[in-house]
Amino acid sequence: MTDSLTARLADFIADTSRKDFPDGIEDAAVRLVIDTIGVILAGRSGGAGAKILHYAEQACGSVGGPTNWLGIPVSAPPELVALASSTLGHALDFDDELAGTGHPASILASAILAMPTRPLTGEKLIEAFVIGYEANVRVAHLVGHRHYRKGWHTTSTIGGFGAVAATSKLLGLDAAQIRTALGIAGSLASGIQRNFGTETKPLHSGLSARNGVLATQLAAASFTAAPNILDGPRGFTEIYADGGDHQDALDDLGQSWALLAPGATLKKYPCCYATHRPIDAVLRLRAEHNLKPSDVVAVIDRAPTFGLTPLIHHDPKTGLQGKFSLEYVVAAALLDGQITLGSFTDDMVNRPEIRALLPLLDAKEDPRCRPEDPTAKDSSAGTGGFHEVTIRTTDGRELSTRVDYPSGSPKHPLSWDDSRAKFRDCVLAAGRNEERGMALFDALRGLPSLTDVHATLDSATA
Amino acid sequence: MTDSLTARLADFIADTSRKDFPDGIEDAAVRLVIDTIGVILAGRSGGAGAKILHYAEQACGSVGGPTNWLGIPVSAPPELVALASSTLGHALDFDDELAGTGHPASILASAILAMPTRPLTGEKLIEAFVIGYEANVRVAHLVGHRHYRKGWHTTSTIGGFGAVAATSKLLGLDAAQIRTALGIAGSLASGIQRNFGTETKPLHSGLSARNGVLATQLAAASFTAAPNILDGPRGFTEIYADGGDHQDALDDLGQSWALLAPGATLKKYPCCYATHRPIDAVLRLRAEHNLKPSDVVAVIDRAPTFGLTPLIHHDPKTGLQGKFSLEYVVAAALLDGQITLGSFTDDMVNRPEIRALLPLLDAKEDPRCRPEDPTAKDSSAGTGGFHEVTIRTTDGRELSTRVDYPSGSPKHPLSWDDSRAKFRDCVLAAGRNEERGMALFDALRGLPSLTDVHATLDSATA
Repeated sequence: MTDSLTARLADFIADTSRKDFPDGIEDAAVRLVIDTIGVILAGRSGGAGAKILHYAEQACGSVGGPTNWLGIPVSAPPELVALASSTLGHALDFDDELAGTGHPASILASAILAMPTRPLTGEKLIEAFVIGYEANVRVAHLVGHRHYRKGWHTTSTIGGFGAVAATSKLLGLDAAQIRTALGIAGSLASGIQRNFGTETKPLHSGLSARNGVLATQLAAASFTAAPNILDGPRGFTEIYADGGDHQDALDDLGQSWALLAPGATLKKYPCCYATHRPIDAVLRLRAEHNLKPSDVVAVIDRAPTFGLTPLIHHDPKTGLQGKFSLEYVVAAALLDGQITLGSFTDDMVNRPEIRALLPLLDAKEDPRCRPEDPTAKDSSAGTGGFHEVTIRTTDGRELSTRVDYPSGSPKHPLSWDDSRAKFRDCVLAAGRNEERGMALFDALRGLPSLTDVHATLDSATA
Repeated sequence: MTDSLTARLADFIADTSRKDFPDGIEDAAVRLVIDTIGVILAGRSGGAGAKILHYAEQACGSVGGPTNWLGIPVSAPPELVALASSTLGHALDFDDELAGTGHPASILASAILAMPTRPLTGEKLIEAFVIGYEANVRVAHLVGHRHYRKGWHTTSTIGGFGAVAATSKLLGLDAAQIRTALGIAGSLASGIQRNFGTETKPLHSGLSARNGVLATQLAAASFTAAPNILDGPRGFTEIYADGGDHQDALDDLGQSWALLAPGATLKKYPCCYATHRPIDAVLRLRAEHNLKPSDVVAVIDRAPTFGLTPLIHHDPKTGLQGKFSLEYVVAAALLDGQITLGSFTDDMVNRPEIRALLPLLDAKEDPRCRPEDPTAKDSSAGTGGFHEVTIRTTDGRELSTRVDYPSGSPKHPLSWDDSRAKFRDCVLAAGRNEERGMALFDALRGLPSLTDVHATLDSATA
């Protein structure tokens, strides 16, 4: 390969269209886009989400005028809509995940939907989303772990390139314009892990969506930038990742597709990913054995090494702390038989019947539960190894189950019923009309045939 | 010192006010603010400036409504106004410079003037500008040369911290809020040198102004972020500069002030800084000896090592190439007796009488002209060493002069007459009414007593 990385990526974006897509990828995209729209809707129930919406309203200085599906003035500039939308999408940590890439779907969907393209057909949205997703993953692989280990938040720093790919495809830019847009995006990339655990983390996602919208629009308006931003000395990959881990990351562009393999994880529960397998286990045992909380004397969770690291709140007092409390989610799963957005209010966490269940948990990392695949040693707290959960009952039984892949992961994908339940939960958390919200879900299942996605979103969420 | 760097900087911003300013600093700020406003006005005559204005108008979707002094819809969000304004300010490379820091004035003035604070008094503007300038310089010193050598554009990456300082002071944020705003700014910093020589370079300046406006407004609205962004492992200074060059950069905060020492350079000529000393020399010899172009047979420029590096266009065909052509600026200085914005049109560069003069130049780097101060070895092409220019005349004379400090540098500052002439040039380049433009200049000389800077700007530039 003699071409620059930037040129190869730009050519892929410019030259690829729906007719080149492999079987199944559009279905995967539709599921992910619907999931993301639900999560963006629900985002306003979180601190960062509510604040960024307020900021967008104030910044536009217009109160009482017409608003879009997010509730943002329709007069707001596209870049500000993208900023707010994707911050909403990451505010609850309820959006998709792809190992080594971060959380691209909210960035991509927000950037596409913020663009002034009207009408936007479902086909165009899907085409831009799929190509943007692939470009995002490829650039993330290019910089690799070296980038993340240095302290960068990959979702944020790389997401702008994906958003450029998606929005450039939407506008039909040619390869030279796309190289310019990528060049501008290379001067916009930011976001560091020091801000994890604060509301600036979801803002990172918003920044990437905004950066993509800005870069693409400027490139379309003949703004100039370096044509080889990803390449060589003093290029993006060197400055942000000391040359990156995988110079071959673009080699099979167009031949393999990340949305199919490994595929995105859609989160089933709106809490730390490290809690998902124990929740799955408790709900499974509860259902199979028809357990009531009063039947249970202990819940024993044996976790993989590092599998409990993020779960730091053993006596949570707030809904936010509850998201990082294995004691709480196990208690709530036993008591309520489900974990939803509604599980994470301060009131729910402080119920007396919950307080009584918190001491039941006995959780410990166990070398037995380490990843069996030696190449998986870099996997996250939510994906490496397996959990083995045992429930001890008042009548002396020991009920055990093992979970390797959490619900929502590519090996154990959400069913359409699961997706529908999650969407309903999101609509309710957003304070939207349930009937119209579920009509939106049903309409979006037919996304490939929608002729005006904006009209569908606006009418169903008004 | 046990406090964190971030806390010390935030305390300085929160606790310092006009009454703490040393003598002379307000005058320095007024001169710089006026210069910057002129340069921002002129910015629309450049490619990046015209394009970013068009972008801002399109993004707001409102045509024909009321506009501010820049010509941007008054309904535009403050962050978009800041983006456009500071891109305009850097579009002609005609804004101030401070060695090791970049070009902070356009970022600071743009951020302050984009904020929704109404009315904005001259006193408040100056206070915010002086404190923002100092904070900007200190963070630039903290990261040091290591940061720039890595490939970052310091103007862009650091400018957001200065813009946070200025706008936080304007809003009267407390130290904890300022730490949050600095924390957000640390996740917004971007801009790499790969985009030098393209229109994305001035965009970098716009990004910084926008980032400051966004970070400060979010912090004021109780958004959360890391309180120690500048400090320690995985903090800003480590990620962007491997720990930085000068951990002591904040030690004498409040005791020394960069606006007084070394002081900012205000550019006299709208072209590469490396051409300024030869232009000064030619204009001086031309005036002292009453020379006409037809009197001249050669112009011999002996330059310091690296002093000619950026001057790559020996046979320029466009106005932009002319800015980086020593042949052209020497010819234009001989022919016109001045170098102004009007010198850099394509037509002016291609005049037949100019083409005849281009061969007169004999320029060479000469070790004799290296910096005499051994500590000055890192100085730029425009500031290190000295130029010695000799003009050989048709009647056999050799007229020589030496220039160590270019016009506009702290050692050789612009007079008020120079500033007024530059401002007039900017007003005309912007296509504005000359009389109203010069009335603005005169009004701004009384900046400390203005009760509503926005009203002054809007009325004088309508």
